[in-house]
Amino acid sequence: MRAVRFEGVGRIAVQELEKPAPGSGDLVVRVEASGICGTDRHILRGEFSSRPPVTLGHEFSGIVEAIGPGVTRFKVGHRVTGDPNIACGLCPSCRAGHVNLCESLEAIGVTRDGGLAEYVLVPEKQALSLPADLPPLYGAFCEPLACSIHGVDIAGLRPGMSAIVLGGGVIGMLVVQLARLAGATRTVMITRQAAKRQLAEQLGATASADPSAGDAVFDICGPGGLLSGGADVVFECAGVPDTVALAPKLARRGGAAVILGVLRPQDRVEIAPLELLLREVRLLTSFLNPFTHARAADLIATGAIDVAPLVTRQIGLEEAPGVISEPPPAGEIRAIVVP
Amino acid sequence: MRAVRFEGVGRIAVQELEKPAPGSGDLVVRVEASGICGTDRHILRGEFSSRPPVTLGHEFSGIVEAIGPGVTRFKVGHRVTGDPNIACGLCPSCRAGHVNLCESLEAIGVTRDGGLAEYVLVPEKQALSLPADLPPLYGAFCEPLACSIHGVDIAGLRPGMSAIVLGGGVIGMLVVQLARLAGATRTVMITRQAAKRQLAEQLGATASADPSAGDAVFDICGPGGLLSGGADVVFECAGVPDTVALAPKLARRGGAAVILGVLRPQDRVEIAPLELLLREVRLLTSFLNPFTHARAADLIATGAIDVAPLVTRQIGLEEAPGVISEPPPAGEIRAIVVP
Amino acid sequence: MRAVRFEGVGRIAVQELEKPAPGSGDLVVRVEASGICGTDRHILRGEFSSRPPVTLGHEFSGIVEAIGPGVTRFKVGHRVTGDPNIACGLCPSCRAGHVNLCESLEAIGVTRDGGLAEYVLVPEKQALSLPADLPPLYGAFCEPLACSIHGVDIAGLRPGMSAIVLGGGVIGMLVVQLARLAGATRTVMITRQAAKRQLAEQLGATASADPSAGDAVFDICGPGGLLSGGADVVFECAGVPDTVALAPKLARRGGAAVILGVLRPQDRVEIAPLELLLREVRLLTSFLNPFTHARAADLIATGAIDVAPLVTRQIGLEEAPGVISEPPPAGEIRAIVVP
Amino acid sequence: MRAVRFEGVGRIAVQELEKPAPGSGDLVVRVEASGICGTDRHILRGEFSSRPPVTLGHEFSGIVEAIGPGVTRFKVGHRVTGDPNIACGLCPSCRAGHVNLCESLEAIGVTRDGGLAEYVLVPEKQALSLPADLPPLYGAFCEPLACSIHGVDIAGLRPGMSAIVLGGGVIGMLVVQLARLAGATRTVMITRQAAKRQLAEQLGATASADPSAGDAVFDICGPGGLLSGGADVVFECAGVPDTVALAPKLARRGGAAVILGVLRPQDRVEIAPLELLLREVRLLTSFLNPFTHARAADLIATGAIDVAPLVTRQIGLEEAPGVISEPPPAGEIRAIVVP
Ligand SMILES: NC(=O)c1ccc[n+]([C@@H]2O[C@H](COP(=O)([O-])OP(=O)(O)OC[C@H]3O[C@@H](n4cnc5c(N)ncnc54)[C@H](OP(=O)(O)O)[C@@H]3O)[C@@H](O)[C@H]2O)c1
Ligand SMILES: NC(=O)c1ccc[n+]([C@@H]2O[C@H](COP(=O)([O-])OP(=O)(O)OC[C@H]3O[C@@H](n4cnc5c(N)ncnc54)[C@H](OP(=O)(O)O)[C@@H]3O)[C@@H](O)[C@H]2O)c1
Ligand SMILES: NC(=O)c1ccc[n+]([C@@H]2O[C@H](COP(=O)([O-])OP(=O)(O)OC[C@H]3O[C@@H](n4cnc5c(N)ncnc54)[C@H](OP(=O)(O)O)[C@@H]3O)[C@@H](O)[C@H]2O)c1
Ligand SMILES: NC(=O)c1ccc[n+]([C@@H]2O[C@H](COP(=O)([O-])OP(=O)(O)OC[C@H]3O[C@@H](n4cnc5c(N)ncnc54)[C@H](OP(=O)(O)O)[C@@H]3O)[C@@H](O)[C@H]2O)c1
Ligand SMILES: [Zn+2]
Ligand SMILES: [Zn+2]
Ligand SMILES: [Zn+2]
Ligand SMILES: [Zn+2]
Repeated sequence: MRAVRFEGVGRIAVQELEKPAPGSGDLVVRVEASGICGTDRHILRGEFSSRPPVTLGHEFSGIVEAIGPGVTRFKVGHRVTGDPNIACGLCPSCRAGHVNLCESLEAIGVTRDGGLAEYVLVPEKQALSLPADLPPLYGAFCEPLACSIHGVDIAGLRPGMSAIVLGGGVIGMLVVQLARLAGATRTVMITRQAAKRQLAEQLGATASADPSAGDAVFDICGPGGLLSGGADVVFECAGVPDTVALAPKLARRGGAAVILGVLRPQDRVEIAPLELLLREVRLLTSFLNPFTHARAADLIATGAIDVAPLVTRQIGLEEAPGVISEPPPAGEIRAIVVP
Repeated sequence: MRAVRFEGVGRIAVQELEKPAPGSGDLVVRVEASGICGTDRHILRGEFSSRPPVTLGHEFSGIVEAIGPGVTRFKVGHRVTGDPNIACGLCPSCRAGHVNLCESLEAIGVTRDGGLAEYVLVPEKQALSLPADLPPLYGAFCEPLACSIHGVDIAGLRPGMSAIVLGGGVIGMLVVQLARLAGATRTVMITRQAAKRQLAEQLGATASADPSAGDAVFDICGPGGLLSGGADVVFECAGVPDTVALAPKLARRGGAAVILGVLRPQDRVEIAPLELLLREVRLLTSFLNPFTHARAADLIATGAIDVAPLVTRQIGLEEAPGVISEPPPAGEIRAIVVP
Repeated sequence: MRAVRFEGVGRIAVQELEKPAPGSGDLVVRVEASGICGTDRHILRGEFSSRPPVTLGHEFSGIVEAIGPGVTRFKVGHRVTGDPNIACGLCPSCRAGHVNLCESLEAIGVTRDGGLAEYVLVPEKQALSLPADLPPLYGAFCEPLACSIHGVDIAGLRPGMSAIVLGGGVIGMLVVQLARLAGATRTVMITRQAAKRQLAEQLGATASADPSAGDAVFDICGPGGLLSGGADVVFECAGVPDTVALAPKLARRGGAAVILGVLRPQDRVEIAPLELLLREVRLLTSFLNPFTHARAADLIATGAIDVAPLVTRQIGLEEAPGVISEPPPAGEIRAIVVP
Repeated sequence: MRAVRFEGVGRIAVQELEKPAPGSGDLVVRVEASGICGTDRHILRGEFSSRPPVTLGHEFSGIVEAIGPGVTRFKVGHRVTGDPNIACGLCPSCRAGHVNLCESLEAIGVTRDGGLAEYVLVPEKQALSLPADLPPLYGAFCEPLACSIHGVDIAGLRPGMSAIVLGGGVIGMLVVQLARLAGATRTVMITRQAAKRQLAEQLGATASADPSAGDAVFDICGPGGLLSGGADVVFECAGVPDTVALAPKLARRGGAAVILGVLRPQDRVEIAPLELLLREVRLLTSFLNPFTHARAADLIATGAIDVAPLVTRQIGLEEAPGVISEPPPAGEIRAIVVP
């Protein structure tokens, strides 16, 4: 079978590999859709820890093609999404139920072979059902949605609250929808590209703003601003120092800023402790998808979250190395690979 | 001015009273709308503690007609909703921030003169702004909505969860909408009258059922049921022993039942402790509206909660004693008095 | 090796079995101590689901005697405690992180061979380290302590709160200590035997009472009572209908009752819904030990929880069938088997 | 009567004033003890917003000398502690129950006359009972303790967790005790002065360290460190940029840092977002004492918190201006003024 192999910093190519065979408790999944994510680009540049040579692709779904001994919940022909993050179950974090903080985390598509291939091996514990009649591309959004759900859980958003979302990528577009789902009556998307602001409003943002157009804090939180006094929750989904610095300033008294963005190891951001204290703002972080993948699959299966407008390109495996090697073009939300 | 006076068990009449004069920190509010609630009927029957003679009406809104000295946030002509529940600030519950559990609670329309009158006195601390362009009847729903919000807060409903609502009165119809707002992807209304089931589905319930039609637990939670395995949260909004008994049985493993219904003091309900334990079900109660009235006003002001279909009758002050003396007619959700 | 075998309702005996051999990821543990618990008696009477023939014993600790392939964290000679409850990882409860509510739960000493034997097989994921210099009997208390910690977590006890503990068995004695550890400034033990009340006071209860001596609710929560107004949290640790009925009545406004006791399937208890509502009391249940076993091991290893006075008898394997067949004698807290 | 008056930046003196007369709902309290706090020094230097001329002193207790009309819960002769922070009840923060974040907060001893005087006026809602037999100086610790309780509540400390406390002032010494009370089995005090480290260990810290002695993060959280892997909760109680920067680095995976320290408006601190994200550390702030003053009074009344060793000097009113004008001498925890 063909697979997109990461071979070392800067080296990526489609190669021919053996089709995987299912071990005990394993599913072999024929990949229907596999998303290309910023993390894949980070891996290629050596900014995110991986274990080459390895097949990339941690956002994928497909059809069960074969099952190993001991598999009880899935049959050949089922559609499934794979939760890529495999916790060890043995470290102190796992023992405390913080599986996303596992000290020996394995991840499909990062440290073991992933979904940018014709077939991928998925332990039964990492697989979740999707309906047979779901459009095949949608399943690739379960992973980013599961991470976004975790962020919204951490934020404690409740009906009648307000939210600001910084960054109009796939995470930002999913968080906008989740904020609406969680009852936010006002949600403001802040991103630079006008097309993304428009899409966000179509997906449920009640307003949007361009952060480069002026003093975002004053324009939004000042008297007469879009959200005078600030938002109950600010979600940082851009992954750059500027937005991390902005996030707590946009939170209202008693509010929270939740960082979802993955910055570079060397990035530093300045905070103003007294300002946080006097307003008792919480600066939170949200990492991966602990126990949220099933809810993500359900929200996509029921159509509660709309992912169709997030597919900006559909490409083949052969094109994937090139797409990963380049920064995303303007307007791109998600390129989905159909092997 | 005219006012609906409760004079003692079974005795109620419209009477002529002095228009109230504002003391320090007080607003005099010209009532635009005042809801008739089951609690008014309980008071008339002597089943709910009150302090006659007193003007009834604890769900009201109107226009500020005069202000007393020291009032800073409201001006004559503003539209306001009144939070009827006045905590003492001195008792242990108040000191712990549980203002709804105040040991010396006063309530406008229960222990002091309320909104079933041309004018009502409202301490500034109990008043909240409503927009000038809101249809005047809507403000009367802030109080039941604030109670419903408290119930949903207590339940901890999050996006992707499921809910069951028992009882299709005004509380049930508001909770259905709040459950949708809080991200419930499946909400089942259980009530006996078909018209109420229909209205609930129109307001966001994804399904509905008649509890008298069979074995509700099996039909809903059994294999192939509407919510196989049960709901993440069950809201009891009917206020009768049958529904209280049903509620925890309809909750899924790890789920919760939240009792909002006010039963009679003598009512008793049997639970099965082992069933609760093995599924680790929580049986919770939700009383009044602590710190939720502002959110309620906001949800109504922004139209996030639809109250128009809940007004089933609009009547004058003179008709109110009769309406309170009778049980609500079939199909009634809320009779709103316009003085 | 010798093992205490449950063969069917009412049938229990010590038998000679093969010593277990470690499969992949398994530890073989030489048992140093194994507690006899009420659940063992329930199993023998057919009141608790099991899978005979099986070796009993779900509260045990010992020394690693052999390890199977793939074991990374333990070496031969290490002292370990075993978490008996093995979640499937595949069911909806497991996927949601509620591992204690697993729909296919296996339990060492209940559905697979347990610690009332010379040796027991423990998957590495179920084992936790204990210090080499810990008195060998103490490890047998990790499992009941882990369950008790879960109950205290659910209760949300915070410094300065008050607690009532119903039932002076091992669970009650551990909860008394945990309540003190969690900052309860007043903890009242309610149990019938004077010796148990005395022990509770020695372990940190600030007072105690005999429930059969009068009207417990009035005596404790009434004016001038031990905890006038009731307790912030009431822990039901007796496992009988009387104490379940009592628990919510002893909770203060805004307080909670947490049921830990395992009742019989047929037991029913009456509640008074209006009383719960007006005081907004929560009726909670706590089942097993999700993600708390490591904390239990740590609290015992550091001596923060004192288990020495809870060992009321130390017996050999041969005596175990007799002890399990009889109700516990007066004064018994825990009989520990040393094989 | 004599009172310590703040007259403007750098100007402070004892002056003769009229003894206050009780208005409606007021208590006149004869001050028994009044603490001098870093905030008084900040006010004198113009670094903390105040409203001169005003009598300082926001940590005080004393005996009710006179009561105004409408007072129901206190009698002349009662001992009380005063909660200095008076929320308006009208702003959005107050309506949401976040009274410590009130947008129009008044504070006794900051914006209105305080307890560094022979008598102080206290609204009944701000007063809480203390026992008649409590040593008179102890009541002055209720306010800092109430703030510390809020910090520990926010942290979510539970039995078996670990804590680090940065800064050995009165807040740090109270947090050490609260951490122990909340069940922390390991608490490390980090402060520069050896005498303070010694006192912390005497009050319940299980270890201590000098932050100037090396690389605190490595020494404490590194392999073989005092708390290898870091602490579940880190409390910043020193109020300087260095300790704010240190706090999140000392937190373990899934842990939290709670900032209690009041920095200067111009202080900035650098954070490393990726490090926070990968370990999902929360950076929290804790401001004032919302709904915790009664618990503080209770913990001091019952002796659960030991404040005697925190009184390092007892002085008269005349000495107070000098003490406030100077930085605290080495070893000082709290100077208590006895008027
Ligand atoms: N925590 C987790 O578990 C988790 C999981 C998945 C992904 N992530 C991270 O989440 C972040 C978002 O992921 P993604 O896939 O949505 O990334 P993405 O497609 O790169 O989207 C980020 C968006 O941020 C916007 N942006 C960039 N700089 C900005 C600025 N200064 N102000 C406002 N907006 C700015 C950009 O849109 P404009 O050009 O319109 O400004 C861009 O589209 C990434 O850092 C990713 O690594 C985290
Ligand atoms: N906790 C609080 O803070 C709070 C605040 C306000 C009100 N309440 C209480 O909440 C409850 C609901 O208030 P409401 O104003 O909505 O009352 P309501 O108008 O009387 O509505 C209750 C509904 O319950 C349904 N019902 C009655 N018996 C039922 C049964 N056996 N099974 C299923 N449904 C049944 C009835 O509809 P069908 O005829 O269609 O069955 C009825 O319309 C009352 O008890 C009220 O006192 C509580
Ligand atoms: N939820 C969980 O995860 C979990 C885990 C382990 C055990 N459990 C359950 O927790 C319960 C306690 O376990 P245990 O091992 O401590 O049991 P135990 O040794 O049987 O102790 C229960 C104690 O309750 C007291 N008691 C009985 N009737 C009482 C009454 N009417 N009022 C007050 N006290 C009464 C008895 O002492 P006196 O004779 O002094 O009254 C008895 O010692 C059991 O039901 C057990 O099955 C639950
Ligand atoms: N959030 C709230 O509600 C609240 C309430 C009251 C007070 N506060 C604030 O909390 C902070 C503590 O109050 P406090 O009265 O305890 O103050 P304090 O007496 O000044 O104590 C602070 C201690 O921090 C230590 N310290 C200073 N620099 C340090 C460093 N680099 N590393 C480690 N320790 C250092 C000092 O002891 P060594 O000399 O031994 O290092 C000093 O004793 C202040 O900022 C205060 O304004 C906040
Ligand atoms: Zn792990
Ligand atoms: Zn009160
Ligand atoms: Zn399971
Ligand atoms: Zn305020």
